[in-house]
Amino acid sequence: MDPTSLPLARSAALAALTAHFAGMPPVAAMQPRLLGWDGETLSLGAPLAANVNDKGCAFGGSLGSLMTIAGWGVAFLQLAEAALDADIYVADSRVRYLKPVYEDLVVEARLETAGEDGAQAINLPGILRAQGRVSFRINARTLLADGASAALLGGRYVAMAR
Amino acid sequence: MDPTSLPLARSAALAALTAHFAGMPPVAAMQPRLLGWDGETLSLGAPLAANVNDKGCAFGGSLGSLMTIAGWGVAFLQLAEAALDADIYVADSRVRYLKPVYEDLVVEARLETAGEDGAQAINLPGILRAQGRVSFRINARTLLADGASAALLGGRYVAMAR
Repeated sequence: MDPTSLPLARSAALAALTAHFAGMPPVAAMQPRLLGWDGETLSLGAPLAANVNDKGCAFGGSLGSLMTIAGWGVAFLQLAEAALDADIYVADSRVRYLKPVYEDLVVEARLETAGEDGAQAINLPGILRAQGRVSFRINARTLLADGASAALLGGRYVAMAR
Repeated sequence: MDPTSLPLARSAALAALTAHFAGMPPVAAMQPRLLGWDGETLSLGAPLAANVNDKGCAFGGSLGSLMTIAGWGVAFLQLAEAALDADIYVADSRVRYLKPVYEDLVVEARLETAGEDGAQAINLPGILRAQGRVSFRINARTLLADGASAALLGGRYVAMAR
């Protein structure tokens, strides 16, 4: 991503997210980088070499962690772009490992919608402003270059206004 | 643990597990170490400093990963002590984050039992020898120094004879 071509609030939010990841040793060790953010879906990448297991493919824990922080990042970015500061926690998550990943890791995450076509995700900034707290669900997946999903995460998170 | 006081098969299995963890970059970054193994329950520790998040407590992804590899380690050790070599995979996992961890991480994992008092866990070496493949469930938790559980993991794994 070229942050210089983005609106200021988005550019600042992405810079804050990058600094946030870099400041956590176990996250920095995965060497995550921002691949894309359109206001709804956050894509993160990470080199296989930093996340490889004994079988030459990605360590399952790295897939789970990268999907977890991608979900965290969706909320962070939506709230930061609305000039809201919150503590965001993951409350629980379920991960299904479907295929080994023999390439650099790519994950994407977004808010869960109600499941109908065109359903809207919840309004995180609106609920946080009104209630000071918002609980939300994230769907994330690990993508292979051929388009297949290698792992899926469903997680519940909570954000609390600071 | 003092490996010199253990039976040879157990000592060799623990040394192999330690080498295995050290050989995976994302696992080595967590700096895990063996705290205990009695043939059923595996305890691992890791320093908070290597696994800290932005709030000064343990990164959720590190808790999930450490519990995941502890579960993996239970199967590895039971099979290695029976002189069996297998590929072991995590298939899915569910993690519940209950409390923040402001101290060095301690996790323990064991095979899930049927839930009755005194119920026996499945015989991993026996099933692997007979069928070449064994599916099993692990229960793991992150313990606080005061004895409370900070996080719980339930996971399904598969081991396949090499």
